[in-house]
Amino acid sequence: MPHISLEEHLPGITGLLEYRLDTAYPIRDLTQILLRGESTLTQAERELIATVVSAGNECKFCTSAHTAAADILLGECNTTQMVLQDLENAPVSDKMKVLLQIARKVQISGKRVSPSIIEKAKSLGATDLEIHDTVLIAALFCLYNKYVDGLASITPNDPAYYQSLGNKIVSQGYLRSPQLIKKP
Amino acid sequence: MPHISLEEHLPGITGLLEYRLDTAYPIRDLTQILLRGESTLTQAERELIATVVSAGNECKFCTSAHTAAADILLGECNTTQMVLQDLENAPVSDKMKVLLQIARKVQISGKRVSPSIIEKAKSLGATDLEIHDTVLIAALFCLYNKYVDGLASITPNDPAYYQSLGNKIVSQGYLRSPQLIKKP
Repeated sequence: MPHISLEEHLPGITGLLEYRLDTAYPIRDLTQILLRGESTLTQAERELIATVVSAGNECKFCTSAHTAAADILLGECNTTQMVLQDLENAPVSDKMKVLLQIARKVQISGKRVSPSIIEKAKSLGATDLEIHDTVLIAALFCLYNKYVDGLASITPNDPAYYQSLGNKIVSQGYLRSPQLIKKP
Repeated sequence: MPHISLEEHLPGITGLLEYRLDTAYPIRDLTQILLRGESTLTQAERELIATVVSAGNECKFCTSAHTAAADILLGECNTTQMVLQDLENAPVSDKMKVLLQIARKVQISGKRVSPSIIEKAKSLGATDLEIHDTVLIAALFCLYNKYVDGLASITPNDPAYYQSLGNKIVSQGYLRSPQLIKKP
């Protein structure tokens, strides 16, 4: 049961973003800019950052939702699972592997990001902006994970829920949409 | 040295918020709403939440800045130090003590927030909105701490810097101000 009174038909972050709309707007805007705005990282790569951070925080709702979004964008389910379970051998670029390692470090503590891993990322072609965005996306998903679990919002068990949410995220993005709040 | 190229005269979060303005705006907006918007928690109480979370994450820049802001709002330095070092005996309300405990739990993991501590907060008069805002402020300051330390932005040692920043935060709030970006 959630710690505060939330709409029962809106699990996870969806109910929280409807609970207080004035704080939801900047959270949605920031996510839309970082995950869907212009970037040299693909949308799938940015969803993978969100996924590894959410998995690191053991936030089942966010991990499931962004796994679904990444899988839809990639057109297959193997990459996300490999990134989560065996990053070294995952079918992503070497640059992306290091950016995902940086995201994992940020999830634990910003202080874990060492000059040497930054140097490695840059030697593999990562730009300052890509490093900035990786850190900020990781920090933003720590906000989401703590918000979702800190208020004990409902976590559905049905994989079909996340498939549907993933489809909405991919097709509509992160801004407020009437479909996201329509009662089932 | 910061991990990416930032303006040298803008340490901590200030340089990051100038590095990418489009992401800075929603971060500033969210902070202004949560810490300066209408609330049954005082501005000082909300700064204390920011301070305990930043201290938990060992983010010296954010801890020093929000300690300064809280001290200025309270008109004394004792309360913030007591909250950081001996919360049980700090001169804040019993409700506030529990909300600060909740914030500390969120800083570690959202999953740490138990039904029993929420029940305790509610029995001391905490409203759903106060609990919501405490969790979201704590989550937001985790974002800040990870952003600031994850990119190794410069942390000044001079206490006068934080006194000056605290004064700016209190007098001008969190939205972008020409004074915050003026070269010294």
